[in-house]
Amino acid sequence: MSNTRDRLVTTTAELFRRQGYTGTGLKQIVTAAGAPFGSLYHFFPGGKEHLGAEVIRWSGASYLALVNEFFDPAPDVATAIEWAFAGAGMTLAQTDYADACPIATVALEVASTNETLRQATAEVFESWIVAVAARFESAGIAADAARALTLTVLSLLEGAFLFCRAARTLEPMAAAGATATAAVRAALLARSG
Amino acid sequence: MSNTRDRLVTTTAELFRRQGYTGTGLKQIVTAAGAPFGSLYHFFPGGKEHLGAEVIRWSGASYLALVNEFFDPAPDVATAIEWAFAGAGMTLAQTDYADACPIATVALEVASTNETLRQATAEVFESWIVAVAARFESAGIAADAARALTLTVLSLLEGAFLFCRAARTLEPMAAAGATATAAVRAALLARSG
Repeated sequence: MSNTRDRLVTTTAELFRRQGYTGTGLKQIVTAAGAPFGSLYHFFPGGKEHLGAEVIRWSGASYLALVNEFFDPAPDVATAIEWAFAGAGMTLAQTDYADACPIATVALEVASTNETLRQATAEVFESWIVAVAARFESAGIAADAARALTLTVLSLLEGAFLFCRAARTLEPMAAAGATATAAVRAALLARSG
Repeated sequence: MSNTRDRLVTTTAELFRRQGYTGTGLKQIVTAAGAPFGSLYHFFPGGKEHLGAEVIRWSGASYLALVNEFFDPAPDVATAIEWAFAGAGMTLAQTDYADACPIATVALEVASTNETLRQATAEVFESWIVAVAARFESAGIAADAARALTLTVLSLLEGAFLFCRAARTLEPMAAAGATATAAVRAALLARSG
């Protein structure tokens, strides 16, 4: 039974990523997950919003793990950021520009319409910000600067995802990645200053 | 009658901005616009997609005019960008974090689900990119650098909109605006180099 629950979450995450929260119906979810309709309300008594909040948190945790995969082997944090943008571009191209931020579409849909889900997206974003800022701090960048740098880097990534998906080109990711990498390198140089 | 058409477009633009394309129903549109239901199909025989494409183009043109309002009076293009991010933050705060990019939510919703509307969003984004890059070029920045700088600045703005709306704080806009302004100043300094 817990396999069914997992399948509902991972299937819904994929649907949210490609078509958003409002555009994803419960029937489509159970069909795509190969799950009986009743299982959805069994595992998520609060229905679509309940499942939605769970999917946002699960997607956020998965993406955070992915980010760490770039930082762990990288020789320095600037290189990690360079790799992360290159990886994001490659994934976009490999998935016909569908596989970008797992929660951005949902976050914009719910920001002014569903307070429960807005808070879930805010918590996920904050978890990413804290994790990336901690990497920058570990590299010797002061806490305030590390947080501002993180907001800059993540804004560049999210904005580039939007422009890349709309235009079906990697040009915005290349420009944003170069700026993000340069900003991190500049912050590393400023440490010793 | 053309007043009714205009009202349908401007009302739908506002609804798309706050709740997206999928979440906006035709009944809600005609009710909010105070228009008879039949008028929607009279002016937009293609229905929601037809109206949607028109709204995306109209919103894009309105936003482009707004961008020009920052460049025209500014002493230099870096100051224009500084003002634009400050203005974006003020508008967010004044509208309870609802009034951000007019087409970003729709763009993410349709990127992988509606090719007609995806193309409309891509055309709007390209019109912004061309207009801002032209301003940078007029300031003496080389064409390739001007376009990359524009993609960086607009990615920062769109990404910051997402994080600000989710967390209901202006912190991401402040960080993104500082980076965008610094990047433009650096490009201006590099001209003479």
